[in-house]
Amino acid sequence: MPVTADQQAEIDEQRAETHTTRRATVPGMEAHLYTAHPVLDHGFVRVIDYMGDDSAITQAARVSYGRGTKAVSNDEGLIRYLMRHWHSTPFEMCEIKLHVKLPVFVARQWIRHRTANVNEYSARYSILDREFYIPAPEDLAAQSVVNNQGRGEALQGEEAQRVLDWLRSDSDTAYDHYEAMISQDGQQGLARELARMNLPANIYTQWYWKVDLHNLFHFLRLRADAHAQMEIRVYAEKICEIVKDWVPLSYGAFEDYRLGGAQLSGKGIECLRRMLAGEDVTQETSGMSKGEWREFMGVVKIAS
Amino acid sequence: MPVTADQQAEIDEQRAETHTTRRATVPGMEAHLYTAHPVLDHGFVRVIDYMGDDSAITQAARVSYGRGTKAVSNDEGLIRYLMRHWHSTPFEMCEIKLHVKLPVFVARQWIRHRTANVNEYSARYSILDREFYIPAPEDLAAQSVVNNQGRGEALQGEEAQRVLDWLRSDSDTAYDHYEAMISQDGQQGLARELARMNLPANIYTQWYWKVDLHNLFHFLRLRADAHAQMEIRVYAEKICEIVKDWVPLSYGAFEDYRLGGAQLSGKGIECLRRMLAGEDVTQETSGMSKGEWREFMGVVKIAS
Amino acid sequence: MPVTADQQAEIDEQRAETHTTRRATVPGMEAHLYTAHPVLDHGFVRVIDYMGDDSAITQAARVSYGRGTKAVSNDEGLIRYLMRHWHSTPFEMCEIKLHVKLPVFVARQWIRHRTANVNEYSARYSILDREFYIPAPEDLAAQSVVNNQGRGEALQGEEAQRVLDWLRSDSDTAYDHYEAMISQDGQQGLARELARMNLPANIYTQWYWKVDLHNLFHFLRLRADAHAQMEIRVYAEKICEIVKDWVPLSYGAFEDYRLGGAQLSGKGIECLRRMLAGEDVTQETSGMSKGEWREFMGVVKIAS
Amino acid sequence: MPVTADQQAEIDEQRAETHTTRRATVPGMEAHLYTAHPVLDHGFVRVIDYMGDDSAITQAARVSYGRGTKAVSNDEGLIRYLMRHWHSTPFEMCEIKLHVKLPVFVARQWIRHRTANVNEYSARYSILDREFYIPAPEDLAAQSVVNNQGRGEALQGEEAQRVLDWLRSDSDTAYDHYEAMISQDGQQGLARELARMNLPANIYTQWYWKVDLHNLFHFLRLRADAHAQMEIRVYAEKICEIVKDWVPLSYGAFEDYRLGGAQLSGKGIECLRRMLAGEDVTQETSGMSKGEWREFMGVVKIAS
Repeated sequence: MPVTADQQAEIDEQRAETHTTRRATVPGMEAHLYTAHPVLDHGFVRVIDYMGDDSAITQAARVSYGRGTKAVSNDEGLIRYLMRHWHSTPFEMCEIKLHVKLPVFVARQWIRHRTANVNEYSARYSILDREFYIPAPEDLAAQSVVNNQGRGEALQGEEAQRVLDWLRSDSDTAYDHYEAMISQDGQQGLARELARMNLPANIYTQWYWKVDLHNLFHFLRLRADAHAQMEIRVYAEKICEIVKDWVPLSYGAFEDYRLGGAQLSGKGIECLRRMLAGEDVTQETSGMSKGEWREFMGVVKIAS
Repeated sequence: MPVTADQQAEIDEQRAETHTTRRATVPGMEAHLYTAHPVLDHGFVRVIDYMGDDSAITQAARVSYGRGTKAVSNDEGLIRYLMRHWHSTPFEMCEIKLHVKLPVFVARQWIRHRTANVNEYSARYSILDREFYIPAPEDLAAQSVVNNQGRGEALQGEEAQRVLDWLRSDSDTAYDHYEAMISQDGQQGLARELARMNLPANIYTQWYWKVDLHNLFHFLRLRADAHAQMEIRVYAEKICEIVKDWVPLSYGAFEDYRLGGAQLSGKGIECLRRMLAGEDVTQETSGMSKGEWREFMGVVKIAS
Repeated sequence: MPVTADQQAEIDEQRAETHTTRRATVPGMEAHLYTAHPVLDHGFVRVIDYMGDDSAITQAARVSYGRGTKAVSNDEGLIRYLMRHWHSTPFEMCEIKLHVKLPVFVARQWIRHRTANVNEYSARYSILDREFYIPAPEDLAAQSVVNNQGRGEALQGEEAQRVLDWLRSDSDTAYDHYEAMISQDGQQGLARELARMNLPANIYTQWYWKVDLHNLFHFLRLRADAHAQMEIRVYAEKICEIVKDWVPLSYGAFEDYRLGGAQLSGKGIECLRRMLAGEDVTQETSGMSKGEWREFMGVVKIAS
Repeated sequence: MPVTADQQAEIDEQRAETHTTRRATVPGMEAHLYTAHPVLDHGFVRVIDYMGDDSAITQAARVSYGRGTKAVSNDEGLIRYLMRHWHSTPFEMCEIKLHVKLPVFVARQWIRHRTANVNEYSARYSILDREFYIPAPEDLAAQSVVNNQGRGEALQGEEAQRVLDWLRSDSDTAYDHYEAMISQDGQQGLARELARMNLPANIYTQWYWKVDLHNLFHFLRLRADAHAQMEIRVYAEKICEIVKDWVPLSYGAFEDYRLGGAQLSGKGIECLRRMLAGEDVTQETSGMSKGEWREFMGVVKIAS
């Protein structure tokens, strides 16, 4: 169960309250409010608050471009134009605040996105719960043999079992000692800020994370990508679903131009033109390195 | 009239609409929504949207400090504690979006606050209106004779009149030529992005400005200060009134610890202790420069 | 002459001094130090300081990727890999500080790039010089007839002359009155912070601007682009030349992947594959809007 | 030994090289370059590069304030003025790049300072070393009994020994299993990005960290403070020593106005004036909460 009983009670109470507002309101997001969407074995994502909608973006763009934007007749066209031409400031006019529960090693990647506001649970002040991420057997991937960063096939048989046993037992031992060290029962009790150093990176933490839509899209482009580590990608994918309900036009443009798009180099464009002119271009004649050529082929590959 | 008829119509329409929401809602802010508060002769500030309230701040703080914050029994105490100890991240959990109309020379100061989102009216795309800030006679201050940055007494008589005449006539001439240059009536018409260079810095521009509460407080501390230029200070003061209605507990703490507070140096603390011990400390015996001593005296001055 | 005699004397003095350092040093940049490169009629760009070189980037990348990067055998390959995969943090390890003199309307665009450090000449404290940007006749472009933002052909004959006359005379009048208003000769003298509002946007200002290489590349991608306003583009182009001397490998990768590259949408990739498979795709069958199709054709256009 | 043999060889090689430069150069910092200053049991701080010196700050300030700053006759006076009045932008004109080796739980606090550039060793790509922070016995502090965040006395006797044994044995076991899980000797080998989750927060990581002087001062004010956790404070204190050698005038001002200074609230100023006027003010008559009063007394306390 990813949410504690206390948290659930608080959520239920807040969920029951409704207010009247003159602010832009999105029914799809209201449905998400105060609902914890489970991610991984003990994690979740839930929307705490949001500001703006698709119209807030076009409204801001129309302040910037004034009468000039009247030519683009509708919101969808304008939003696609803004996304295509990297006009990022109108997307910054929307903001979202999420409550996320996630393993520490995922949090360490996540926090590298600096343009966001964060309040994390502090293990200096408070005691962490005994909750650890233990991968499902099918997610126990081997190191990739083709690159230093990726994953290969799932581990099999005894090796998989051994890994799971270690992850579980080391987590348990670490937490037992954490509890024993901070205990004030018959002893002084180690400071929390010190005792936490014994806890492994698969322990769960939680935070409030607030970010504008432009920076969220940047996060999602990198973290919902196939090359992202699976354990952060599942959070990004869940957030993608939420954003789709929040700003459907913007999300559609993001999906087409960013998630589903590709960046070509000058060399790539040159090769492309030669190929379209009928030339049979190879890596050797492309001027690209092997790595670049492989990625380029991934973009232009002709369905056979 | 600071708002155009078109804008007023749009404001009235939005104002009439209300929605139901589960988000934190502040009645005091709902009243501000879609109301343009006049500032200077043609400017205004109006709230477009807001996220969060005083409770959103303590809620985020309690995520960070966990059970540790239970000790601080109420929201006001916790908010004052956060402000006093520069715990800024919980205040970042609130966000406000303003529509501001302001002279260009004010906008140039304002934009130096980088941690905010901005969409400004673009004079590359659109045509600026004939609206210029002309100071009220009592605001036509002379250069200060005591420091390089400040203002002295208001100009008097003929000198004041001459200044007003120049400001008005130069604005008018510049705008007449701006219009004539971009006109496509019987001529090609100069590009807008070039013609705008003829316009003086007292012309009005407008923008959407979105900022979190922590960064807004930083802005207000500098710009609502007595040393700020009057023409930006009046905007800051208007925003102070709005923030007071939005997050009254946080604003109260900000007023006490920031606006009404003072920073003492190590030397200042030392002198203070000597004074409290009965010593008659002078600038000469203080170890401070004349400037520092004058500012220090401003803080500790004994009511006579 | 874009640099004042005082400034030139200071530059010459600093230029004459050399020091011994263990820091990464780039001969090409040393040559730029304390040289003011003229831009527009009175502007300039000069390098004040720099930190790092191409090796600083790969050194930082190797800290991140550790032994993993040994596979990429050389610095150029690694830098191209980083650029291609948007690994931006190693590029942030280089920093440059420029002194720039530029018209106010250019400064207003430039400052929108927020991730940089700026110290601008303050007209609250000091008196601006009588220096205005007056475009060369061939740069007096008409408003574009095809889009709201662009420029068309240069103005001709009497119209061009009239524009130049107005720009010159309005600048002169504004400055005459500025001087007269702040004069303390026989009068109180208006505060500088007020008098500056009479000055048009083609007056020159100057600032120190410090930025890391990643954010500089972002600035250059947008401002050295053909769609940027000419008056800022010439600054960006001059900076491109400097960066090429500073970090030649990184600049080469930037040129290939960013300046000379293109972003394709998911729809664009789909069309491309159909075209490579021999299909004759048109805008009607592409699923793209007219604008998107026109831009797509600009990328894939087959040399005839 | 905090630096590996490989790293030391690289350091020695770089240290031997010197270059000629026209940039601002600080002899005190040249001595620091390529020297790893030990911190904690396996950590270090070393300066990789720096930009600017005290003069770079006043030079930038003089660009901003122009002739206005001539009045402040010397660099020290100007720097103290800037620090006292929160004129932060001139301090942003200096930049420093450090290589830091630190425990993960310290890194997690450190990274919350967002306005900096970071390249951290990646355990997705590479294998972490078997190096863990084990506190010295005298640093094994008990949880404070007066506040939730602080530390009390050092643990004694058996309790201390038990804690040390657990920290050591859990680290060892976790690392043994980490190694065994990623081993490809006779098995597939778990992906590094997964295996790292078994490692506790006292393992060492390292990064390049680049920051401007203004933001560094902000970091130091919070982290060299007596309330900061000791394990991050020792890094901050080491950096303070380095900064003192780099920009002695700025560091002096920082020490007086920030590290050694104090912020008084409006209520505090009021009480102070009453006390200076001879009144015997108590907490009850102060209008302050108990916590505020205790902190206020800490500032004004009269040496007995």
